[in-house]
Amino acid sequence: MLTDFGLDDNYVGVMKGVIASIAPHARLIDITHNIQAQNIPQAAFVLHNSYKYFPKNSIFLVVVDPGVGTDRKPLIVQADDYYFVAPDNGVLSYIFESELNVEAREISNPKLMLNNVSNTFHGRDIFAPAAAHLANGVSFKEFGDIIPPDSLVKPDNLFAEVGESKAIGRVMEIDFFGNIITNIKISEIENKFDLEGLIIIIGGVSIKGFYQTYNGMNDDRPHAIAGSFGYLEIAIKNSNAAEMLKVSIGNEVILRKDQSRSYD
Amino acid sequence: MLTDFGLDDNYVGVMKGVIASIAPHARLIDITHNIQAQNIPQAAFVLHNSYKYFPKNSIFLVVVDPGVGTDRKPLIVQADDYYFVAPDNGVLSYIFESELNVEAREISNPKLMLNNVSNTFHGRDIFAPAAAHLANGVSFKEFGDIIPPDSLVKPDNLFAEVGESKAIGRVMEIDFFGNIITNIKISEIENKFDLEGLIIIIGGVSIKGFYQTYNGMNDDRPHAIAGSFGYLEIAIKNSNAAEMLKVSIGNEVILRKDQSRSYD
Amino acid sequence: MLTDFGLDDNYVGVMKGVIASIAPHARLIDITHNIQAQNIPQAAFVLHNSYKYFPKNSIFLVVVDPGVGTDRKPLIVQADDYYFVAPDNGVLSYIFESELNVEAREISNPKLMLNNVSNTFHGRDIFAPAAAHLANGVSFKEFGDIIPPDSLVKPDNLFAEVGESKAIGRVMEIDFFGNIITNIKISEIENKFDLEGLIIIIGGVSIKGFYQTYNGMNDDRPHAIAGSFGYLEIAIKNSNAAEMLKVSIGNEVILRKDQSRSYD
Repeated sequence: MLTDFGLDDNYVGVMKGVIASIAPHARLIDITHNIQAQNIPQAAFVLHNSYKYFPKNSIFLVVVDPGVGTDRKPLIVQADDYYFVAPDNGVLSYIFESELNVEAREISNPKLMLNNVSNTFHGRDIFAPAAAHLANGVSFKEFGDIIPPDSLVKPDNLFAEVGESKAIGRVMEIDFFGNIITNIKISEIENKFDLEGLIIIIGGVSIKGFYQTYNGMNDDRPHAIAGSFGYLEIAIKNSNAAEMLKVSIGNEVILRKDQSRSYD
Repeated sequence: MLTDFGLDDNYVGVMKGVIASIAPHARLIDITHNIQAQNIPQAAFVLHNSYKYFPKNSIFLVVVDPGVGTDRKPLIVQADDYYFVAPDNGVLSYIFESELNVEAREISNPKLMLNNVSNTFHGRDIFAPAAAHLANGVSFKEFGDIIPPDSLVKPDNLFAEVGESKAIGRVMEIDFFGNIITNIKISEIENKFDLEGLIIIIGGVSIKGFYQTYNGMNDDRPHAIAGSFGYLEIAIKNSNAAEMLKVSIGNEVILRKDQSRSYD
Repeated sequence: MLTDFGLDDNYVGVMKGVIASIAPHARLIDITHNIQAQNIPQAAFVLHNSYKYFPKNSIFLVVVDPGVGTDRKPLIVQADDYYFVAPDNGVLSYIFESELNVEAREISNPKLMLNNVSNTFHGRDIFAPAAAHLANGVSFKEFGDIIPPDSLVKPDNLFAEVGESKAIGRVMEIDFFGNIITNIKISEIENKFDLEGLIIIIGGVSIKGFYQTYNGMNDDRPHAIAGSFGYLEIAIKNSNAAEMLKVSIGNEVILRKDQSRSYD
């Protein structure tokens, strides 16, 4: 389960109650429920970084749903050996853009929903029941009709632009420790840029220096590091980089080669 | 499980350890542990909105217990097909006032508690063991004697007063998104009031307009909506209504008919 | 599971995904993930207070790991009927100092790790897989070589110094309610000190009065109480003692006998 419902209310608990009522033996794991309220790109990024660590045939129930009650479609998706249940609002974008073999259907079969579907809580009334019925072995095609891939919603700005001498990305996630996680893939820049000589412009400051461990960094200064999910991160040893640099999710990050280095 | 213990400490984890030690196969679901510290009405309201979504024969372990260590009684309750384990402080009030067939007993059998009962953590020492033994199939009457319904603690102010032209309720819950949830039931007002022409007085301001979805609302202004659990909510589209209106749990909410409308 | 990863990110969820992939039937319980970032003494204290409430043969996966990616050793430990998987940084100190029969091994067998071990997330790549393989019945000695007890890391200041007329301890934990939990054991002071006549110096103020229940305390004043895990606590009835006294984890706590009392 991945939502922006937080853990203060009964929303997540009630969804689990619904699932337990339909599929008593389904095992439930929380990825997180603390996605920023209605932040679809963040949720998409976190899901993208997480799903491969779960067993094959896992069902990912993703509810970040600002359009609940409007005509945005509820989706059930098979992508190779994984399943996803989510609104059609871009939260599955990285899955759609991946190498996976994707089939998406609209959840429209009322027999696989709760009896009274509200306008404000489809997580409970539509998405949780769909995930539970799927866990029970209900056939994928019983949920509703196929949606052609090109009519699925895909937001812009999810992927960084990596050129020969410059890359432009954005902050996708700030973790609990204040580490700033960008959408710039290490594997896409390590051949084009000298990582040690990288200049990173973020929050109005320039950062130099690329480290392998948090512990190896100089104290009190922000540095770049290869994050544990393969993306460029900015961190400060034993400190909160996002607070220090006043950086938020969505902010731009620019990478340049250090021109001065060639004259050294 | 529903508590005000939060997730920062080991309290909830230790209760789960106790349950796993006694009833290894019991399945655990958290409703929430972030009830406001010692807010019994809020806990009662959240439980009331949640329990029907869980499987029959579920056991609800509810620990919001400012009177721990005093002579308030620990309860074990059967209400139709559901079970509840909680202190006798009003946290089960909605259950007692419902249509359910209720039998309440005092947990007094020391064999069904931990060996050393502390004065400060009955969640671990009395309530969690009781729930676990019940899950194991220990007979309901072995826990202790019946408590007559009229001697159970029931706080005031849990239910809204709905008259012909006016209703008075209170804020029972503010959710993660800042939506303000009242104890005024939509089903009790929709026949007496023209919902579209409702005036809602809360936090010193008057609110008009009743919407079906968050997304359909005008931007930046508070509006009423039928909440997903059947109660009147005040929300602001993509924003935090409770912060904007400076409203807290316990505040009064008044509903009036819009007199001016009849002259339109 | 006990970590400082918080619940905002996918770190804990991904560790659970890894465990579910290796050991599908392993049952997962969270003690807490909200240990202060990199606070090893707090994590050690919370673990020490928690593990005995869990079933025999439980595996405790403890990841508070500021030295991730450096040469600090990953440990797998058997202590009587309990198992622990954690970095060798002192987080298991109370276990090592207990009466338990301890055998510690370094996790060094790459077959029991994920294929690509990162420099920044050993919780996912080393510790979670080790716990899962152990849950699956992999033999304890397959993980790596024994580490002699005297070369295990043990931080100072974990234990209070209790003399005849004075005791010096520190604040190990501040709970969700603001109760201040010290490392001074009630069982170590109750024979040496008259608990009712105790003077406690903390945060620059002197506190008198020892109570049995929160509810029995005078309003608005800090008092001592025997905490539910056997340690001296400072609490204020229905209020947040740590905020009122401006006390943080790590602060010193001094106990003295009330000299004036002997002249009463």
